[in-house]
Amino acid sequence: MINRQLILSQRPSGLVDDTTTTLVESPRPECGADQALIKVGMLSIDPTIRTWMNDAPGYLPPIAIGEVVRAGGAGVVVESNSSRYHVGDIVSGITGWQEWVIADENNRFSVIPSGMGLDLATVMNVVGLTGITAYFGLLEVGQFREGDVVVVSAAAGATGSVAGQVAKARGAKKVIGIAGGPEKCAEVVEKYGFDECLDYREAHLARSLHESCPQGVDVYFDNVGGEILDAVLSNIAIHGRVVLCGAISQYNSMGKPQGIANTSMLIMRRARMEGFIVFQDFGSRLAEAQLELATMVHHGTLAHQEHLVHGLEHAPEALNLLFNGGNHGKTLVVVDESVQLA
Amino acid sequence: MINRQLILSQRPSGLVDDTTTTLVESPRPECGADQALIKVGMLSIDPTIRTWMNDAPGYLPPIAIGEVVRAGGAGVVVESNSSRYHVGDIVSGITGWQEWVIADENNRFSVIPSGMGLDLATVMNVVGLTGITAYFGLLEVGQFREGDVVVVSAAAGATGSVAGQVAKARGAKKVIGIAGGPEKCAEVVEKYGFDECLDYREAHLARSLHESCPQGVDVYFDNVGGEILDAVLSNIAIHGRVVLCGAISQYNSMGKPQGIANTSMLIMRRARMEGFIVFQDFGSRLAEAQLELATMVHHGTLAHQEHLVHGLEHAPEALNLLFNGGNHGKTLVVVDESVQLA
Repeated sequence: MINRQLILSQRPSGLVDDTTTTLVESPRPECGADQALIKVGMLSIDPTIRTWMNDAPGYLPPIAIGEVVRAGGAGVVVESNSSRYHVGDIVSGITGWQEWVIADENNRFSVIPSGMGLDLATVMNVVGLTGITAYFGLLEVGQFREGDVVVVSAAAGATGSVAGQVAKARGAKKVIGIAGGPEKCAEVVEKYGFDECLDYREAHLARSLHESCPQGVDVYFDNVGGEILDAVLSNIAIHGRVVLCGAISQYNSMGKPQGIANTSMLIMRRARMEGFIVFQDFGSRLAEAQLELATMVHHGTLAHQEHLVHGLEHAPEALNLLFNGGNHGKTLVVVDESVQLA
Repeated sequence: MINRQLILSQRPSGLVDDTTTTLVESPRPECGADQALIKVGMLSIDPTIRTWMNDAPGYLPPIAIGEVVRAGGAGVVVESNSSRYHVGDIVSGITGWQEWVIADENNRFSVIPSGMGLDLATVMNVVGLTGITAYFGLLEVGQFREGDVVVVSAAAGATGSVAGQVAKARGAKKVIGIAGGPEKCAEVVEKYGFDECLDYREAHLARSLHESCPQGVDVYFDNVGGEILDAVLSNIAIHGRVVLCGAISQYNSMGKPQGIANTSMLIMRRARMEGFIVFQDFGSRLAEAQLELATMVHHGTLAHQEHLVHGLEHAPEALNLLFNGGNHGKTLVVVDESVQLA
């Protein structure tokens, strides 16, 4: 009747390490009135978790020292005193890095529909917030239109690979990925069907982009920030749209973030740069994205890949994979393999 | 029958100086078929002229060495072989820094309506591209809405002062200016009616802004770029809009522009930053802005001020005034005082 939890013991500088989290054993929480008890099955490992570990203002407050690490995840309802949840429901929400969690008014979960014919890992990847982020980022924030030239950074990553595939499916003129190393670049083209992929480690990126799309970039889906954002800005098309989804190149850096030098290109090209947080900006419209993404998976037109790490205690290393490029596809931590969709 | 012209003789580094332009005497141009000959009366001195002097990509090509300095201005039609122009018309367009210019298909001018009851300097300021830039920048690019908190940099300047006054007239909750020095700050509040004005030379700007508008900045009308842009970004409200109108702090700097460190605030606050070039983006809608701006002038609700510099040969010093803060209001060079609106 214990609940293993990873609590934040010290704020990291750079990658997380042994001193960042501590594995503790707490009593399993009791299921009170209007609550449900959830056994956690799987954790979603996302770059934003790293930003929550910093003592800096963000769209959510920092994780406090001594608090369970905040993270999205999925689990199964094992007890319920709430009309919202039934025993056996598979639900997703903020589980945190722990084995058991309470759902209530302060921490609501969504019931994942059964009968989609997709496994839980796939749902947590492309039909979950990762895929939905790519979908609304490209189509709504980026105002993608048929015939656009689209560039996506971290293109082999979970979000980037979906953004590029949706752009292709919707009639992009050209979809160019940016990724690190020849292996990932090959994957972006061969597995995810991008027209080409530039290796930021090799290329003089601004020049290579100019060669790949001399008319400029209509939509840039940015997951990385920093120098890559600057290189794309120097190639932005007139009335181009930069979708700021993440800035993974900056999340581990201490102190002042790297400055973006080419913002004046937004004036010269009369272009736009806009950030968003999918749950806050499109929280009421999740189903329309899920429907299209699930349909694409069923039709075999949305390639995806999950990188499973087994064991709650390995969540910190799983988080580092996002930053050292060691993952392939969506990184998920399996806490309890028995939790599965019907 | 000569045409005095200022030609670009050497690209400046920093402010323009004696070596930047050369005053030459050319023959007065002949008025050919479908052309009109214009006597230049007044030149509009705008920061963008400085950017055209650099050998760098922009929304227009750089001014070539040996070419007349490109600039907007107004003049009177003295000969016409074109049905578009009548002798005596007062017209505005790209005159360049010279006394005479030909209007034709390659260089079109707009006829300024007579009978507005406004003098030429006023028209070239608030009813011309300067005021129109402020108008569409605030209302269209910035998507200003009644109740917004608005911040304007270079608030004592020609564009900034109009942007703030239009925001006040349209029901802003608060309009905060940013300017350099106590004299300009006082002018922004007393003459232009902003609620307050912060001196960027004195204040810890990001902190002062936070005190002035703890709920954040809904619309930031940016004329300056650089550190001031960074300070406002750190205070941007959720779904705030940054209007990139100019980056005057960077136009005289050589080499790589100063990086903007706080672009990730656009993600956290789900905010937008967008550039525009008024003539290219709103060229077909100038009249609607002119009508409202002229009406405000007539009603006495749009304060304005013109800083007149007399003599074509002083145009280079007039340009420097924009960067060293020596001007008060819209800077105009009077080339020929006899050119006036009826």
